[in-house]
Amino acid sequence: MFAALAERSISVTMISQSDSEASICVVLPEVDAARAEGAIRAAFRADLAAGLIEDVRVRPHVGIIAAVGLGMAHTTGIAGRLLTSLGDARVNVIAIAQGSSELNISVAIDGSHVDRAIEAVHRTFGLAQKDTGRDAHTGLDLLLLGGGRIARELLTQLRSRQAHIEARFGLVVRLVGVADSSGFLLEPSGLSPERIDGLVQAKASGDPIHTLPGGVRGTAAELVAAAREWRLSRPIVVDVTDANDHDRLFLSAFEAGYDVVTANKKPLAGSEASYRALQAATADGSRLLKAETTVGAGLPVVDTLEMLHATGDRLLGAFGSLSGTLAYLMAELEGGAKLSVAVERAKELGYTEPDPVADLSGVDVARKAIILGRISGLAPHAEVHLEGLVDASLAGCSHEELMATLRTLDPVFERRIAEAAERGAVLRYAARVQKDRIEVGPIEVGRSEPLGQLQGSDNLIVFTSERYSERPLVVSGPGAGVAVTAMGVLGDILRIAAERR
Amino acid sequence: MFAALAERSISVTMISQSDSEASICVVLPEVDAARAEGAIRAAFRADLAAGLIEDVRVRPHVGIIAAVGLGMAHTTGIAGRLLTSLGDARVNVIAIAQGSSELNISVAIDGSHVDRAIEAVHRTFGLAQKDTGRDAHTGLDLLLLGGGRIARELLTQLRSRQAHIEARFGLVVRLVGVADSSGFLLEPSGLSPERIDGLVQAKASGDPIHTLPGGVRGTAAELVAAAREWRLSRPIVVDVTDANDHDRLFLSAFEAGYDVVTANKKPLAGSEASYRALQAATADGSRLLKAETTVGAGLPVVDTLEMLHATGDRLLGAFGSLSGTLAYLMAELEGGAKLSVAVERAKELGYTEPDPVADLSGVDVARKAIILGRISGLAPHAEVHLEGLVDASLAGCSHEELMATLRTLDPVFERRIAEAAERGAVLRYAARVQKDRIEVGPIEVGRSEPLGQLQGSDNLIVFTSERYSERPLVVSGPGAGVAVTAMGVLGDILRIAAERR
Repeated sequence: MFAALAERSISVTMISQSDSEASICVVLPEVDAARAEGAIRAAFRADLAAGLIEDVRVRPHVGIIAAVGLGMAHTTGIAGRLLTSLGDARVNVIAIAQGSSELNISVAIDGSHVDRAIEAVHRTFGLAQKDTGRDAHTGLDLLLLGGGRIARELLTQLRSRQAHIEARFGLVVRLVGVADSSGFLLEPSGLSPERIDGLVQAKASGDPIHTLPGGVRGTAAELVAAAREWRLSRPIVVDVTDANDHDRLFLSAFEAGYDVVTANKKPLAGSEASYRALQAATADGSRLLKAETTVGAGLPVVDTLEMLHATGDRLLGAFGSLSGTLAYLMAELEGGAKLSVAVERAKELGYTEPDPVADLSGVDVARKAIILGRISGLAPHAEVHLEGLVDASLAGCSHEELMATLRTLDPVFERRIAEAAERGAVLRYAARVQKDRIEVGPIEVGRSEPLGQLQGSDNLIVFTSERYSERPLVVSGPGAGVAVTAMGVLGDILRIAAERR
Repeated sequence: MFAALAERSISVTMISQSDSEASICVVLPEVDAARAEGAIRAAFRADLAAGLIEDVRVRPHVGIIAAVGLGMAHTTGIAGRLLTSLGDARVNVIAIAQGSSELNISVAIDGSHVDRAIEAVHRTFGLAQKDTGRDAHTGLDLLLLGGGRIARELLTQLRSRQAHIEARFGLVVRLVGVADSSGFLLEPSGLSPERIDGLVQAKASGDPIHTLPGGVRGTAAELVAAAREWRLSRPIVVDVTDANDHDRLFLSAFEAGYDVVTANKKPLAGSEASYRALQAATADGSRLLKAETTVGAGLPVVDTLEMLHATGDRLLGAFGSLSGTLAYLMAELEGGAKLSVAVERAKELGYTEPDPVADLSGVDVARKAIILGRISGLAPHAEVHLEGLVDASLAGCSHEELMATLRTLDPVFERRIAEAAERGAVLRYAARVQKDRIEVGPIEVGRSEPLGQLQGSDNLIVFTSERYSERPLVVSGPGAGVAVTAMGVLGDILRIAAERR
């Protein structure tokens, strides 16, 4: 056959004869196909007539995908990944050949599948991206947004769990990028433990990231954009900032095939359209969005709600105290303190944000309530009926101005607490999520109800559902704090590691 | 080249020339290697001298793995799976050829790797097993042990979530086997919805499985053994029995590559050696064991504990009320009822097991406490200090005998409750898991403690850990019931679906 083709100067691109020896397949230029068929039929006329050769078949419109690279010689599994990616893309594979040099594997495919084959192969091997020089098979690459206390605690916890993650999931955690409000640092092969230590120390002493070795000025979104040029392994964006505009950043991360873990409530509590876009990006499970710490920090709130939802239970209501600061204030009021005095004390104890209005306005609680309403599907479109202890418009006012306002409110709350007590009830700053309705504000609850028994600054969330209808499912405990928040974020990372293993 | 080989009657087994046309590779019998090299060198003497052909190289000791099958022609991705399995097994692949018939793919490999290549390929394609005739790529195959109310509710819930599981994980849930204490039914291609309906109805009316169409007499272990002969897809053993000896069954399931979801406490609460064996089988994460419902039914107890542990928190103590029946009885006693009267009432209300001693002895609570101690790593070796309301040896005694015993205990508990009240405390039937110590029995707790505030028949578990040290993490709610237990089991199945997607 080869002699017959050579005689007519027909060049053969690919040859494949498998172990069965029952057929031999050559790929050659389509313009030569008819001549080649003629030549072969002529050469084997007698064999064809005698039935020794069954047939000579021509298949038109064939393309060849060839993966070429010196690195292939020492990397097992390239062929497997290549063919798996073609299979996943439903590319019709006609013939495969890989010679003993191992530097080239050729796959003849249906010509109409060439475009999607190229796309699939590029995606699988990240061919548009730069090589990090690290093993791409076992990495769990983190882009950390935020350089505050939670970020630093997370880095410490991560280091202590590295051996566990390797043993349990066979994955090596690498910090490939980190951003604060000043700039970012991108090290696609992973920051060394020494550089992470330096980073943690520098951030603890207040140095902005853009001043660190390798740091540049820029935004978190620019970090993600810069990271996309590199071939990362199971990349996860971890957001522990409180930036407003990260919904778009999350979408671009999903587009790049990244997963997202967020402690930042704002991207999930923004406009309904932006939440829907995040939902759409993650609906088929190919991208993961984990947000356990957006409500109740490390307490099992979001996962519990997602599990109720996933198993087909229908939430009837979520009712709870979602702010430790406000729980503390309400407990103080119940103990007889004036609102203005209680706020002053809370501020001194470091329980409030630097601007206490951020807590007192209830806006942060409202965000958590919106997230509960959306995740549960119970109130995806609801506006929040929000009653703050003070109005959010006071934000940024002077301490004196705030205190003056609070003093005017002192008698109001004194009266409300007393009236509640007459009815055997107590006043709690609570969020109530019901079918298409979300309320946030000081709410009277019976003393014997779970929320009425709440003590100190704990969070407490009461879930009522079709399956938990007579008696609710209740989760309570500290709903804020650096260690438990970082732990919740780490838990989300571990869930992704389990799913991406 | 082929002419030169043909002239010397050297038969070529495999040919591979890739798209680069820079080399051509043939595999032929090792005995012919020297003659073949000579023939080729002779044929290309001039080209070799002129440097047009660089070299002729012989690689000895080559084996060929050929995957052959009519089914290959219509199944995309066979080549990918074959080569991935060889890559994973670190088999050195020298050349690959697949002709256009697609019925055969040949892989030339290092001769010393033949054994492990064959093993890897057999494992990947389950060649020692029988074909179920169903798509093996997208299945989530369940073997359900148990035919009681939880099993039936689980089947109902599963059906209602099938669309969700397909959309979210791309997996089709199939019930391939089910066992009760009488026998089992194995349908490797999956029971049809109609047969599942029939099964649910038959079990609801008390018919044993061995009497159903396709049912045979046999044990759950025999079902698993029979299932192993089939090529199942992501098989999960789901145990909702209360059988004693399923630890061995779980081990054999893990050996077969199955995952396990259990609501059955006994396999996890048995001997320390048997628990260690289960731990060893699942340590590297290649086999999954989920047991959320063994403590607190659908409440997020086991997963919360596992998450604390996985994120590096150290549990200091777990303290809680883990039996709805005993919580009800203690509440009745606190309300002034006599123990004997309260037990009679609980039995009438259907709150107790048919033999109330099973509840009253505290043995079931002890099992839950052992599981908490083991999962948390807090008390893996601890014996339980168990004080039952009655002794476990009373099991199986007559109603009269039990009542007589309880009446002798009436004044004892009256006194204990009164003494507790004098100290401002209440008596709870509780489990306390501490470092290397587990206590189960009636325990005095302060009225203002979370457990002191517990109402009715709820479960309540208080976790204290390094990170939840000042204030604990508390989960409470109904810790028993058919719907919430089935839901917890389904949740575990969904977690496995996410990890196996």
